[in-house]
Amino acid sequence: MPNTFDRKVSPLLVPERLLLGPGPSNSHPLVLKALANQPVGHLDPFYIDLMAEVQDLLRHIWQTNNRLTLPMSGTGSAAMEATIANVVEPGDTVLVGIKGYFGNRLADMASRYRANVQTIEKPWGTVFSLEELEEALIKFRPAVLALVHAETSTGVCQPMDGVGELCRKYNCLLLLDTVTSLGSVPLYLDEWKVDLAYSCSQKGLSCPPGLGPFTMNIRAEEKLNKREGKVPNWYLDVSLLNKYWGSDRVYHHTAPVNMNFGIREALRLIVDEGLENSWKRHHENAVLLWNGLQELGLELHVSQEYRLPTLTTVKIPEGIDGKAFSLHLLNNHAIEIGGGLGELAGKVWRIGLMGYNSQKINVEKILNIFDSELVKFKS
Amino acid sequence: MPNTFDRKVSPLLVPERLLLGPGPSNSHPLVLKALANQPVGHLDPFYIDLMAEVQDLLRHIWQTNNRLTLPMSGTGSAAMEATIANVVEPGDTVLVGIKGYFGNRLADMASRYRANVQTIEKPWGTVFSLEELEEALIKFRPAVLALVHAETSTGVCQPMDGVGELCRKYNCLLLLDTVTSLGSVPLYLDEWKVDLAYSCSQKGLSCPPGLGPFTMNIRAEEKLNKREGKVPNWYLDVSLLNKYWGSDRVYHHTAPVNMNFGIREALRLIVDEGLENSWKRHHENAVLLWNGLQELGLELHVSQEYRLPTLTTVKIPEGIDGKAFSLHLLNNHAIEIGGGLGELAGKVWRIGLMGYNSQKINVEKILNIFDSELVKFKS
Repeated sequence: MPNTFDRKVSPLLVPERLLLGPGPSNSHPLVLKALANQPVGHLDPFYIDLMAEVQDLLRHIWQTNNRLTLPMSGTGSAAMEATIANVVEPGDTVLVGIKGYFGNRLADMASRYRANVQTIEKPWGTVFSLEELEEALIKFRPAVLALVHAETSTGVCQPMDGVGELCRKYNCLLLLDTVTSLGSVPLYLDEWKVDLAYSCSQKGLSCPPGLGPFTMNIRAEEKLNKREGKVPNWYLDVSLLNKYWGSDRVYHHTAPVNMNFGIREALRLIVDEGLENSWKRHHENAVLLWNGLQELGLELHVSQEYRLPTLTTVKIPEGIDGKAFSLHLLNNHAIEIGGGLGELAGKVWRIGLMGYNSQKINVEKILNIFDSELVKFKS
Repeated sequence: MPNTFDRKVSPLLVPERLLLGPGPSNSHPLVLKALANQPVGHLDPFYIDLMAEVQDLLRHIWQTNNRLTLPMSGTGSAAMEATIANVVEPGDTVLVGIKGYFGNRLADMASRYRANVQTIEKPWGTVFSLEELEEALIKFRPAVLALVHAETSTGVCQPMDGVGELCRKYNCLLLLDTVTSLGSVPLYLDEWKVDLAYSCSQKGLSCPPGLGPFTMNIRAEEKLNKREGKVPNWYLDVSLLNKYWGSDRVYHHTAPVNMNFGIREALRLIVDEGLENSWKRHHENAVLLWNGLQELGLELHVSQEYRLPTLTTVKIPEGIDGKAFSLHLLNNHAIEIGGGLGELAGKVWRIGLMGYNSQKINVEKILNIFDSELVKFKS
């Protein structure tokens, strides 16, 4: 006799939330509709065609021609790990530029693949200059330089002009985190000479979390092909995955079919809007938010030229309990905003305007709420 | 200017399929409805409660009290890798019982974690006896014995009576693949003294693919806690994941929120039906299928006592092109059945009756199709 299950579990009733935090963002209704289709087989000819569409669309959104471009069957962190797992060999020097939470994660991951991890650090909320990067490349001579383009923990966008050229000059691979920029902030992977990149589904793409877009170019492929022994991660091994996503269509794992229905619609909707239009919309709504917050007397954590359109860090005014305020917004206004992570814990709120949620009406909503509610939290 | 996207991509239109292959199976309509909810944040109090529900429900379906029970944010293969990654240290002897495709996968994975991999093999379609297992345990003295309970490639169900006791006797961990048995075939993890197990969402649970239920008991936890250095896989590191799924609720990765809405509904529906009733339904419909196929003059690959209710391997009669027949069913009748994998490629079809699809009406449908269509393929 099986143990009886003695707790009453009612049918699912999900509360409605406006997700204006660091992600997930709300999904486009057509993406949710796509998710609710009955699955098809992962080797169904229909699905095989859909895989090719997803790959083509991802290449476009990333502005790359990389053959090896596919969504990993996990979240953005899985795609992050995939970039490391495939190209890092034990003893390789991996240089990580840390200016926020996700740089630390890259360093942790690289250490698990037995890299010689070296780091350079900048205060959270700032960026690396080309000079700082070159100095570090000369000092450490890494096999891989890992940088975060859009730091979700700080709201900073790292300028990429010239970084790819530097990496070629010092013969290292450039690995870029584009989790909070894909689809919403200008990205030109090929032009920037980025060798490996990853992202997620739940921010600029307006799809629920669960897929991790991944791409690597020929330079990165060459390093993968030359490695001794197998990739020390079966699930994320691109040499196996490419037999499924490439022309061979050899079964690797059972794909998360419905999530791929979702991301296919999400990517199609960006193409429908126009990629540049999407970038422009994100920028314009972010400017509205920045101006509005400053008009309310609030200070932004990042100086204007490095601000990320998708995520804004706002300093919590002195005397205000930032966590109590976010909880109030969630519980009484069904709006989620984020708190600070790591160095910025307790110091900032994080307001996201990503994908489907980058709308003027949402900017107005959050500004009105700050205007009417924040005063109640002043001591 | 971004590259223009010059291909026309139309709104998604998914063809309807009756999925009677090795999985994915069709999902329960209420599960699909759950998937289509707007996401909530991965640290939202509502979501935190839902996580606890999913864990409790999984424990029930597996008949275990294991604290560390959670769905990995990837497919079944990710959960498979999680069992290995967390407990295997370099040099550990891992003994894999191979009697089908997925045994080979376990061996491949264990080798990537630098285990000393040893294997015992049986013909595809048969099971291991207790004597064979004991002999191998004495010979190899492994740290882990990995077995597949329900081999999706052969349609065999490995008897588990006494296996756990043997593993305790020889001081090794018992790792069990329950991908094609969870929710649909009797499983008593604690009674059977199974130390680690994993499964998937898209078979007996009637949910789309994308989550990999995972569980480990205290014995396995002790091995994890004693290991030198970090788990060599960040995404699947249970010591980190437990800080999110356990009482600390420390952010690890952004959970695939919507897939968890889906699995929560899927598990609730099994509890609603009653776990034993679900097992019984699967058994009864499988018997109908077996009898019907034999009445049509077809031979089953597995002898009756070891047949898996969820997946039946049918020998392809001489002179029939098995692949052409499956394609005919897919293209002209919108029914998916599977072909053989590995040793059984070209020799069997694989018919699945899993979760929501284990219904008498589907048995009748597939038997009628075999009856009317197979004759057209006889040379």
